[in-house]
Amino acid sequence: MALEPPEAPRRPRLTPPMADARRAITDCLEAEDAARPGGIAPGSLFLIAVSGGADSLALAYAASFVFARAGHRVEAIIIDHQLQHDSAEVALTAQETLKTMGVDAHIVPVDIGPMDIRSGDSESGDVMSREVAGNAGNIESRARDARYEALSAVAASRGATAVLLGHTKDDQAETVLLGLTRGSGPQSIAGMQSVSGLWWRPFLGLSRAATEQVCVDAGLAWWSDPHNSEDRFVRPRIRHRVMPVLEQQLGPGVADALVRTAELVRQDGEVLDQMANDVYESLGDQASAGIVPVGLWQSQPAAVVSRVLRLVAKNAVGSHLSHTHTEALMRLVTHWRGQGPVDIPGGRVVRQGDELRFSPQ
Amino acid sequence: MALEPPEAPRRPRLTPPMADARRAITDCLEAEDAARPGGIAPGSLFLIAVSGGADSLALAYAASFVFARAGHRVEAIIIDHQLQHDSAEVALTAQETLKTMGVDAHIVPVDIGPMDIRSGDSESGDVMSREVAGNAGNIESRARDARYEALSAVAASRGATAVLLGHTKDDQAETVLLGLTRGSGPQSIAGMQSVSGLWWRPFLGLSRAATEQVCVDAGLAWWSDPHNSEDRFVRPRIRHRVMPVLEQQLGPGVADALVRTAELVRQDGEVLDQMANDVYESLGDQASAGIVPVGLWQSQPAAVVSRVLRLVAKNAVGSHLSHTHTEALMRLVTHWRGQGPVDIPGGRVVRQGDELRFSPQ
Repeated sequence: MALEPPEAPRRPRLTPPMADARRAITDCLEAEDAARPGGIAPGSLFLIAVSGGADSLALAYAASFVFARAGHRVEAIIIDHQLQHDSAEVALTAQETLKTMGVDAHIVPVDIGPMDIRSGDSESGDVMSREVAGNAGNIESRARDARYEALSAVAASRGATAVLLGHTKDDQAETVLLGLTRGSGPQSIAGMQSVSGLWWRPFLGLSRAATEQVCVDAGLAWWSDPHNSEDRFVRPRIRHRVMPVLEQQLGPGVADALVRTAELVRQDGEVLDQMANDVYESLGDQASAGIVPVGLWQSQPAAVVSRVLRLVAKNAVGSHLSHTHTEALMRLVTHWRGQGPVDIPGGRVVRQGDELRFSPQ
Repeated sequence: MALEPPEAPRRPRLTPPMADARRAITDCLEAEDAARPGGIAPGSLFLIAVSGGADSLALAYAASFVFARAGHRVEAIIIDHQLQHDSAEVALTAQETLKTMGVDAHIVPVDIGPMDIRSGDSESGDVMSREVAGNAGNIESRARDARYEALSAVAASRGATAVLLGHTKDDQAETVLLGLTRGSGPQSIAGMQSVSGLWWRPFLGLSRAATEQVCVDAGLAWWSDPHNSEDRFVRPRIRHRVMPVLEQQLGPGVADALVRTAELVRQDGEVLDQMANDVYESLGDQASAGIVPVGLWQSQPAAVVSRVLRLVAKNAVGSHLSHTHTEALMRLVTHWRGQGPVDIPGGRVVRQGDELRFSPQ
């Protein structure tokens, strides 16, 4: 269990940021190992998603050590979005850097399609949806979708146990702030989970600066994505225009506070999600057929009912309800005065007597 | 029920902002009337807290109409914090303005004590506590405490049914943002409630600009608190330095989004508060004596357990637990390795066998 892989090069002195990075990955691995019946099989394969930035290089660097010591295997995936003229070169450079750590990297080119196709956001009343509907937001979200899809496909084909992502505490804070300004409720400010199915994010507790220090200490040169400083993208604006103002006006602990709030909101939300699941299950075939009895509003609080409506919409119509849609459905009961059908993405909902009935379009 | 008070002066033409303001107050009154067994007794007294600013003058203006029509009485309370040299004059001017609406106003001077006494915040790990511990934050929070105390005392002595406060949607958005950057969890971003005991905030759905328009339309001159533009206070910094940046970078709907998020987070939190209350009640005398069985951690989710701990601390020790303290108590169970007692404000908690025991200092 304590074997160094034979091909590992001589490693630099272990600095505190490196130790933190290793500890973060070890904690994540041990928790997941303990959570699975029988634990994680020896020799399992873990993939690291690498962009060439400091966060993912630090992740690969620390993970290659931790997983080797635990008797597992590590490979890296470099997604080339082909959005920048030098993207192939960036990918090759990252591959070279990973080689010095003894990590094999697969370069996976993805095509996010023609630039003029706009895919909207169902949350049409939102602040950000105007942005997402725009071309820049569109590129951002399509690139993200394409990235996760490609990583997921590679993980399946390689039989990987998990894909590790380099998101840091700063990314989490930005995500929370972004979600907050979307106004879609607790789900949107819960931020990213450290483990969610295939995806592991062991660095959510580390700052971006800490990952850069790991790279400095390890002598790794990283790539700075020029998109990250482009004002036409939302996330760079949050990073460079909003967060610094918050820290300047409110104090340097803002990112930590955002992350802590997200964690607590997520804890609350998980309890209510579970309650909603139980209620949904108890409704049985009726719910899967898209029928919700109005009596639910008497027996359950609004926070649970609105979640049940989302589950029914998802399972019966394949529809993701926005906050605005959920509100409209709630009003079919709380403010009933004979309204007509409510349109939802891909379907509609009508009140008939003491039931809401969901149907696909 | 539709009587105009005889002393009311001739009112200006009803404009849409005025109608919105009246509607907001009517909705609040009707909801509370319906929520109380037997409704609100005719001729009840309602107090309006007036600073002389546009929000509270608009509130007094609209409320005087709505409550008179509903057969109730309205008086105003003007708190004079005596923090500015012309505060007595500002109070008198507001009193004169209220007189033109036919509203009697009581001026209540309050003394927030010597300026050099610093009262800290129990949330010592927070961003804002450094601020609160400072003199400016100190003045802000002491002035607020003194204001609520004085209003509460006047309401009791006058037998008022409720005290109406002029907080707007913008105040709510600022409160949410402030709470978010405190990082104390869902409670801290739930914002202000539209009705909470004695306090009614009917304008939480109206913008500050709308209240100013009400004043313009009604020909009411309002006072702009110079403290509201002073950078040494936290709230003005949020208002003038942070919100405009958020709107500029993320779109003009940020305040609405913040308010909507707060509402949804509050809905979730209320369900969990109720669950925690039920659990607390079920623990009976044990809990009121400050004893919490460790078994609770098996039967209840962390989001409920942490709330139960706060209830026990409040009721057994009179202590308000910060997030940091709650976490430390949680670890006496989740990460038990024989830790010593944990200090909490005004008391301590020790694990003995399968129990946590709270005791005052």
